Amino acid sequence: MSEPTDVAPCDSADISSWDDETDVVVVGFGASGACAAFSAAQMGAGVVVTERTGGAGGAAALAEGIIYLGGGTPVQTACGFVDTTENMFAYMMAACGPDPDEAKIAKYCAESLGHFDWLVERGVPFDPTFDPETSMAPAGTEGLVYSGGEDAYPFNEIATPAPRGHLAKTKRSTGWLLMEILAAAAADAGAVPSFNTRIDRLIVDDGAVVGVQGQRFGETVSLRARRGVVLTAGGFIFNDDMLRQHCPPLVRGTFKVGTEGDDGRGIRMAQAIGASVRNMYSGEVSLPLTPPRTLIHGILVNGQGQRFINEDTYMGRVGQSALYHQDGEVYLIVDEASYEVNWMGLAASWVCETPGQLETEIGLPPGSLEATVALYNEHAATNRDPLFHKGSQWVRPLIPPLGAIDVRIGPAPYAPFTLGGLETTVDGEVRDLHGDPIPGLFAAGRTTAGVCAFGYASGLSIGDSTLFGRLAGARAARPPA
Amino acid sequence: MSEPTDVAPCDSADISSWDDETDVVVVGFGASGACAAFSAAQMGAGVVVTERTGGAGGAAALAEGIIYLGGGTPVQTACGFVDTTENMFAYMMAACGPDPDEAKIAKYCAESLGHFDWLVERGVPFDPTFDPETSMAPAGTEGLVYSGGEDAYPFNEIATPAPRGHLAKTKRSTGWLLMEILAAAAADAGAVPSFNTRIDRLIVDDGAVVGVQGQRFGETVSLRARRGVVLTAGGFIFNDDMLRQHCPPLVRGTFKVGTEGDDGRGIRMAQAIGASVRNMYSGEVSLPLTPPRTLIHGILVNGQGQRFINEDTYMGRVGQSALYHQDGEVYLIVDEASYEVNWMGLAASWVCETPGQLETEIGLPPGSLEATVALYNEHAATNRDPLFHKGSQWVRPLIPPLGAIDVRIGPAPYAPFTLGGLETTVDGEVRDLHGDPIPGLFAAGRTTAGVCAFGYASGLSIGDSTLFGRLAGARAARPPA
Repeated sequence: MSEPTDVAPCDSADISSWDDETDVVVVGFGASGACAAFSAAQMGAGVVVTERTGGAGGAAALAEGIIYLGGGTPVQTACGFVDTTENMFAYMMAACGPDPDEAKIAKYCAESLGHFDWLVERGVPFDPTFDPETSMAPAGTEGLVYSGGEDAYPFNEIATPAPRGHLAKTKRSTGWLLMEILAAAAADAGAVPSFNTRIDRLIVDDGAVVGVQGQRFGETVSLRARRGVVLTAGGFIFNDDMLRQHCPPLVRGTFKVGTEGDDGRGIRMAQAIGASVRNMYSGEVSLPLTPPRTLIHGILVNGQGQRFINEDTYMGRVGQSALYHQDGEVYLIVDEASYEVNWMGLAASWVCETPGQLETEIGLPPGSLEATVALYNEHAATNRDPLFHKGSQWVRPLIPPLGAIDVRIGPAPYAPFTLGGLETTVDGEVRDLHGDPIPGLFAAGRTTAGVCAFGYASGLSIGDSTLFGRLAGARAARPPA
Repeated sequence: MSEPTDVAPCDSADISSWDDETDVVVVGFGASGACAAFSAAQMGAGVVVTERTGGAGGAAALAEGIIYLGGGTPVQTACGFVDTTENMFAYMMAACGPDPDEAKIAKYCAESLGHFDWLVERGVPFDPTFDPETSMAPAGTEGLVYSGGEDAYPFNEIATPAPRGHLAKTKRSTGWLLMEILAAAAADAGAVPSFNTRIDRLIVDDGAVVGVQGQRFGETVSLRARRGVVLTAGGFIFNDDMLRQHCPPLVRGTFKVGTEGDDGRGIRMAQAIGASVRNMYSGEVSLPLTPPRTLIHGILVNGQGQRFINEDTYMGRVGQSALYHQDGEVYLIVDEASYEVNWMGLAASWVCETPGQLETEIGLPPGSLEATVALYNEHAATNRDPLFHKGSQWVRPLIPPLGAIDVRIGPAPYAPFTLGGLETTVDGEVRDLHGDPIPGLFAAGRTTAGVCAFGYASGLSIGDSTLFGRLAGARAARPPA
């Protein structure tokens, strides 16, 4: 019970002296923590933001920086796209499930335009131009991309397609700029950072959270929070034990998305006082096949040579399906007309004159790829895909010779992060196992189960980290009644 | 915080008077609780077994009663099967994964012969005969069946096939007899039942569990446990909120396996004091297609008319795959030679002269079933199945006319129960979030994450409930050092 990584709570009666005292302690200075700290400070609360590393940033600073926003933002409008709050809600209820948190999604959509304005007010610049080629950060400074398969089946039949992936105006990965701005905003609002401070446990008094305890340069520090503690300490993709406990498929991910700080400590220290968790099995798995989008003319097949998804959907959906349902054994079959080496250098590992030869070379069961290509081509002759509903513009017969890009785990990067975490109300209150808020405890970002129950679109992590970070910070700062 | 279903712990200092006091309190009088109570009482400890209903039994009393035992039991040997502890271990490590609990499986296999003897000593009768036709309880009194696909791919290549599903000698469902015997054994050993007593929370003293509190006929009762509390309160298949939090696919199960007591309360009251959980996403899903086994000559296809599994494997594996990976949309395609109405009345919903007509009738994509049957028949002409490795004795071409049995959720029963729960040591100590045992707290059965991380074989629930129930009871009864 006494090891430094122990997350068991500490009773306030056992604290002989507090090292610091403030109204709100925010644990973790990433996207969500910066927003929580800003909001709490703006409400007049004293705020300390602890951060285990030597500076602000977290996973968001390393990310491409896509922010999922919609409902008719100025960027969407300038690029000629029509979107409404209702339309965005319809998409998210379908894409973030099964069984997504309707209250959070409703709030997320209702606040989206306001959140865009809030980001602009903080100084985040957006280039009102659209890049049709990628679902990631563009090579240029374009500020808008499709990032969730909104224009592909089944979502294009559920809601009017609109791109909602917004990016700060800078080159390629944009998360660093976003975080520079948000961290400065928090500091300007009066939040005081406490770097090199790793929080390990909550301090409780008769069922209420009244502070946190951790380590700073080898010393134990106890910080008192008069109004509340906000956990914004990231997810658990860098904790293999937790992955094995809750989502074994993600252990196999080869390029974990996050920082070493994503060790689940924020989740566990709350669980240790009876907090409830949700969606712990869920993870986003990016499998970056495109750009170029011409590759979408190809077909993805599994270890039995069978197709399993519409290739024109969001690559994060492809990655989830490949890892969770196809055991990470996937190949992209292309012909000469559709082939290009992809943006990260993935090239055809096999090229053959016929599908039968290709399946032999790859090691697929005899006849399997042959049958799949024959059926696909039969429908493709009239630009149809009745099995998986790939958009007709991407459907044309594959003409041999055919190549295969090896998209198995190993040859291809499977880039996962966790989506499960603490159960919170829309305002960021952490729920106990009975569903009641735990007094004094709040959370946001990847420490929580957010808008995505399982399905995902790029930008929803930074989107819900920043919006619900703001709400959690404001709620925590509210003076006791 | 004060509702009757609240699982938040209670401090012993707040207990003004104890209603009863003993050495070991066992919570839940099912298979695991009976064995825990027996073992604790045999060690000389005073034991009270609480049970929320009016009598012993739990889910096991309603079950078919298969007990997974091997390593060369007298029943296996009498039926002519050779098995060893090592062989059983090799099968279980492959079948109970991915990433199963190796320590528990090793213990389970090492103790299996001894556990068989223990059951016989308690009075459980076994008929040393084998039924080759079913993987469930036989219609007769046969005492041995294949219950986990041991004789099918890939397990038949990993370990020497041996049936390990043992059943007490009585007609069809045998769980009632097993429970009658185990409950009597616990009582004979001196364990005192406390019926109509629903335990809601743990009572703690400085981090150690010292009792339980609950309701009996509307009165709050507090029971002191001098040595330990053993949670054997079942799983959570009857708690839809918990299913949505942790394993949404199981919400769709149409025939939940368990009792209404499987509401996860045992898991949650331990979580409320910082216990760790594991495999909460996992569930067994029975999809009872056979007997008769002749149906295995048919092929199972999904909503895209594709095969997805070897049809000769354990029906619980088929059910898991159908629900978790095929969205519960599955059809069994048969020809006249392989067709019979199955044991529970599932019959062909469609019959057509050609695969093409059949796919149209079912509503499968055009050409999909045609292509699947053509490829299957091509290989079946030489009794091979290179895609899914169904055993050659089950592989022969399907000759039209063809029929389809509707195995979707609704028309067919999907019968799930949960496999996730508290993390425990081999001895039944409940681990906290740091991995350390929580003093005074023990658990076994479906309240815990047992030998099955995800994969399952019939008989493993009663098998690990009874064996690890015995171990947990013995550990809890150990006098303090």
